[in-house]
Amino acid sequence: MSYMDRILACAQYEPARYIPFFVGAVQIGQIDRAFAPHLSAFTDTFWVGNDRVDLNDNLDSYTARTEAVADALEVLKKQGHITGWRSENYPASASFSSPALFEMERAAVPLFGVKGYGVHLNGYVLDGDIIHLWVGKRSMTKPTGPGKLDQIVAGGQPTGMLLKANLVKECSEEASIPPEMAEKAIPVGTLSYVTSRAEGFRDDVLFNFDLQIPQNFTPKNTDGEVDEFFLWPLEQVCEIIQTTDNFKFNAALVVIDFAIRHGHIEADHPDYVDIVAGLHRT
Amino acid sequence: MSYMDRILACAQYEPARYIPFFVGAVQIGQIDRAFAPHLSAFTDTFWVGNDRVDLNDNLDSYTARTEAVADALEVLKKQGHITGWRSENYPASASFSSPALFEMERAAVPLFGVKGYGVHLNGYVLDGDIIHLWVGKRSMTKPTGPGKLDQIVAGGQPTGMLLKANLVKECSEEASIPPEMAEKAIPVGTLSYVTSRAEGFRDDVLFNFDLQIPQNFTPKNTDGEVDEFFLWPLEQVCEIIQTTDNFKFNAALVVIDFAIRHGHIEADHPDYVDIVAGLHRT
Repeated sequence: MSYMDRILACAQYEPARYIPFFVGAVQIGQIDRAFAPHLSAFTDTFWVGNDRVDLNDNLDSYTARTEAVADALEVLKKQGHITGWRSENYPASASFSSPALFEMERAAVPLFGVKGYGVHLNGYVLDGDIIHLWVGKRSMTKPTGPGKLDQIVAGGQPTGMLLKANLVKECSEEASIPPEMAEKAIPVGTLSYVTSRAEGFRDDVLFNFDLQIPQNFTPKNTDGEVDEFFLWPLEQVCEIIQTTDNFKFNAALVVIDFAIRHGHIEADHPDYVDIVAGLHRT
Repeated sequence: MSYMDRILACAQYEPARYIPFFVGAVQIGQIDRAFAPHLSAFTDTFWVGNDRVDLNDNLDSYTARTEAVADALEVLKKQGHITGWRSENYPASASFSSPALFEMERAAVPLFGVKGYGVHLNGYVLDGDIIHLWVGKRSMTKPTGPGKLDQIVAGGQPTGMLLKANLVKECSEEASIPPEMAEKAIPVGTLSYVTSRAEGFRDDVLFNFDLQIPQNFTPKNTDGEVDEFFLWPLEQVCEIIQTTDNFKFNAALVVIDFAIRHGHIEADHPDYVDIVAGLHRT
């Protein structure tokens, strides 16, 4: 087992399994050939061909697209094709910097292979030169990665919020980190992966932040999404990452990125180039 | 002018301009269609086709390949096709972790589009919370980027040295940083780019290191490669990066990576995703 096992777990992508999903001329996602036929019933919303799915061109506004897709998703949910409904709307756009063409329920994003975005916080405590990381154990009721280890704070990026504001909100809900502390979180880059998962196709960019947490602060969950917090030396966290899949698939990458940036992995590590490249797939 | 201008300056790649360069079944580089005919004269060393160049299969050992290529390069140098001869041998391999198949003069690496590797050091000084960066002005006699701004220490990665050992050596030669200080440099990741330059095709990975430099230390060049050192606030360095091309093309990326990792660029910057992705092309 190695860092590369965690990297490769986020690079399970067979292009032939998917067909592109278009809104007008813009490819906005990828849909599993096995799922696409379920969209054929919604003739006013989707046009399903052998090699592509198109949103109906008659849906000519953000609102019209959002409402039509929402109606279809409600039916697909009742049919059992969408699990883990969140009641959170996500933007659907070709890239983070291009305008969203509509918004859709978060749980459906991977089924349409639409790009997803999240904010992840590395909460660390310094004990002299030794770095400790706060690690959360996800609630067993979470629809994705129940019981898996995770960052102290992590959340999806919904529509209509700045990233930093979303991070501050998640800090409060997930770990009772007060806004004045959360505001000190430092943006440290992104990572990206493109991978097939049970829930569908994940084409995600994560925005990572580092926050030095005072030694006398203990996180406390308030939204029921975290069962337990641990404060472990980075060395121990990296050992868990290398030898188990106890961390949620994408949270492992966030830890590896942290370990790279903080010099915890030597440049002469035989997989160094592949590890860093593997954190940036798109 | 913007960070993206510096990123895009390192992404000038027209695939149609190049043909692959093979050693046996392994593609080891890319050669400009305009340069390939100059290799046709060396029939014992190169086989030049319309759509590929192959090293002669009779060259069946590392030493045989190295010697045959060296002989050809000597002639090409005399013909004026290779400028900026360094008398430094670089490994030629399909990737950093795969074995080198031969070694070749550094100045010829871009002509064959062979992957190149370098070590770059961000030498920074803390004044309270304010980060200052040491910046070097390259000697006007350097074959690449004469007079351009650069990291305090940067060098190519030759054959037969560990990265950290090479960095410590370059620290001594370029900036008189003593080994006991240089050893404290922290590896912080890689960046990569694939771009056409006047010298040929650059397909490079840079290994970046951060080193906090004491306030009372002043770098001093000993190998004639640096004309002058400046200590500037990171804010000022980033302004230069965004508004000029005074930095060497790849040194600008190293600064941008530093600015990203140290939280100097906000996650909500409109180009944030594209900037980070642009630092990791391979």
